[in-house]
Amino acid sequence: MKTINEIGKAAKKASIYSAKLSSEEKNELLISLADKLEANAEEIIKINEEDVKKAKENGVKSAFIDRLTLDKDRVKDMADGLRQVASLPDPIGEVVEMKTLPNGLQVGKKRVPMGVIGIIFEARPNVTADAFGLCLKAGSATILKGGSNALRTNTCLVDIFRKALEDEGAPADIVQLITDTSYDTANEMMRLNKYIDVLIPRGSGRLINSVVENSTVPVIKTGEGNCHVYVDESANLDMAEEIVINAKVQRPGVCNAIETLLIHENIVEEFMLRITNELQKHDVEVRGDETFQRVEGVIPATDEDFDTEYEDYIISAGVVKNLDGAIEHIRKYSTGHSECIVTENYTNAQRFLNEIDAACVYVNASTRFTDGNQFGFGAEIGISTQKLHARGPMGLKELTTTKYIIYGTGQIRK
Amino acid sequence: MKTINEIGKAAKKASIYSAKLSSEEKNELLISLADKLEANAEEIIKINEEDVKKAKENGVKSAFIDRLTLDKDRVKDMADGLRQVASLPDPIGEVVEMKTLPNGLQVGKKRVPMGVIGIIFEARPNVTADAFGLCLKAGSATILKGGSNALRTNTCLVDIFRKALEDEGAPADIVQLITDTSYDTANEMMRLNKYIDVLIPRGSGRLINSVVENSTVPVIKTGEGNCHVYVDESANLDMAEEIVINAKVQRPGVCNAIETLLIHENIVEEFMLRITNELQKHDVEVRGDETFQRVEGVIPATDEDFDTEYEDYIISAGVVKNLDGAIEHIRKYSTGHSECIVTENYTNAQRFLNEIDAACVYVNASTRFTDGNQFGFGAEIGISTQKLHARGPMGLKELTTTKYIIYGTGQIRK
Repeated sequence: MKTINEIGKAAKKASIYSAKLSSEEKNELLISLADKLEANAEEIIKINEEDVKKAKENGVKSAFIDRLTLDKDRVKDMADGLRQVASLPDPIGEVVEMKTLPNGLQVGKKRVPMGVIGIIFEARPNVTADAFGLCLKAGSATILKGGSNALRTNTCLVDIFRKALEDEGAPADIVQLITDTSYDTANEMMRLNKYIDVLIPRGSGRLINSVVENSTVPVIKTGEGNCHVYVDESANLDMAEEIVINAKVQRPGVCNAIETLLIHENIVEEFMLRITNELQKHDVEVRGDETFQRVEGVIPATDEDFDTEYEDYIISAGVVKNLDGAIEHIRKYSTGHSECIVTENYTNAQRFLNEIDAACVYVNASTRFTDGNQFGFGAEIGISTQKLHARGPMGLKELTTTKYIIYGTGQIRK
Repeated sequence: MKTINEIGKAAKKASIYSAKLSSEEKNELLISLADKLEANAEEIIKINEEDVKKAKENGVKSAFIDRLTLDKDRVKDMADGLRQVASLPDPIGEVVEMKTLPNGLQVGKKRVPMGVIGIIFEARPNVTADAFGLCLKAGSATILKGGSNALRTNTCLVDIFRKALEDEGAPADIVQLITDTSYDTANEMMRLNKYIDVLIPRGSGRLINSVVENSTVPVIKTGEGNCHVYVDESANLDMAEEIVINAKVQRPGVCNAIETLLIHENIVEEFMLRITNELQKHDVEVRGDETFQRVEGVIPATDEDFDTEYEDYIISAGVVKNLDGAIEHIRKYSTGHSECIVTENYTNAQRFLNEIDAACVYVNASTRFTDGNQFGFGAEIGISTQKLHARGPMGLKELTTTKYIIYGTGQIRK
């Protein structure tokens, strides 16, 4: 087995190759990888069954088992995902700005590959294909480290990719999997600054925080979404109801679903009972502040409730005095993911957009749109909730960097 | 004395205020800060003398004493620096991209302040004014942590700024200095993810690496420059000489000066003696490979020499077989700062620009131009040598982030 250092070194070397690939060559590789995936579907599913069996024996939760399990459709989805990435425009090579300085130097900012991208993820084997496909299109080499429960499946997938790359005359090391799932190995990977340019953790808040905590390699933090909808005094209440229900129940288990509803005190009479009943009709448990507790079935919300990302059919709900109260509440509890105001008041809409510090701030639309595909990027590697490099949904462009290129005619500095 | 946590909390609160300031208000503040600096020049210089005296007693190096010392001119330079920042265009508020999605959602990417920026630096008290001025113009609050040798001076400067802010009706906590210079406190600051959005270390490689190693707050790595000039077979040798001499001796102590000269083997006869003598005439010690050692006065270069950022009147020199040899050498030793080829060959120029992985890649110009002011940014907070967020000279724009703002008309996700 290769050491982490050897894996890093091999990735760096392969990244020199991948950086030079033309768009055409990358697209051909992606399509060929997709074909190989589908051609090997049976083997993949058979090996995946072993992982699933072991995981069940180890007593892991059913939601986890569901994410781990591959069937023919899911393998096809992975393959189609790679084909879709092939169809996206290539971000590499674009010169973002180019100007001529007074001394005649031409200075341009050129979009170039990151180099080596590390992905640390949990149980979903489709991340293997999705993340690698995007990194390849962005001209980088990828080092993957998946959860131990999916090790057999991930090994099988990466072996197929590596063989396919070699068949096409490309270095297999454009993608590598770290098969040692020990804690020490993860730690070593997070400190491989010499070879890894960026680390992207994908999975639970626990995983992500552990990477942020331990990595010396620059990290893009994704995920965590304690999202709010604030229904203002002037809101169109039909619209507000549609947005609240959609943002909570359309898919409660994801990071852009809302966890808290705030309403203006002047619409308590008109809106509180109505929205609570509608949420309850959708099987949502409502945990409310004192005012909301007047509605039947509402459970008292603790301070911890307002601080919790349920990712479930639960919502915390509270009444605020006005927009300032809403902004204050959101500032206190927000994870900076997606926040929404429903209002017909122009000034309040603008104030919310300006004063809320989050990756995505909405007026009169469901937070569920925070998504690379919805934003028209064609693909998504995750949703950044940090402020460096990328913020919000990240597509291919966010997987690249830039460098300055300077054309001179002998200029020296005076 | 406030705890680090209290400092962080106060900064976050002040950042809400600074984010709302208009360009006009920020510019007025900056000019008022500059005036206050100059008005208090005598006191600043008197207090600085105490720091200088103590530092001398502690036997610190003379170059360090020079960086630490303030006189009337240097205080004026600091004030003028703030006035210049006031004159720069405000990066905040620009909507970088705005599009309407098929469902009618208008999605825009708006440039907004970082929030709280932490600056960790060493002996140069002018960083206090420079860094804070830029962060203020970028709409953020600043937490400064300078070296213990400059503590009295920095405290005096920050006190002046805080008082000037209050006089103008702004919260003093827009700028704070951590006066506890212990290691533990530095460590605590580097883990204050809750309140600090980005950390920028400025100073020696040792300081920077320690921050990268220990910080869980996102860091922008600046500095380290092991820069090369490669003189190709086809180079205009007069131009090559001018560039090599300028890049080495115009200011050897800075990160964009070159440390290594590589020449094509076919120009050894014509160029090696000439450039070596010229370097020696400029008091540069040449440490060469076997070929260069044929020239009188050249000291043998070790592998470590090629790996060293001298920041001094020393250069390592070697002969390579061709462009591939040069690229290979640079890949091995480069810190990814600034790299230059001198050539008249079109293909080699393009290959060098494409294949060298550095923040700034030059054809036929001195590496000394890697600088925010030279690039026309009007100011510089540092030169990033990492690939995330910013790469190369960083101006005001690099001190900002973006957020998505979304205008809806009731859209929900299907």
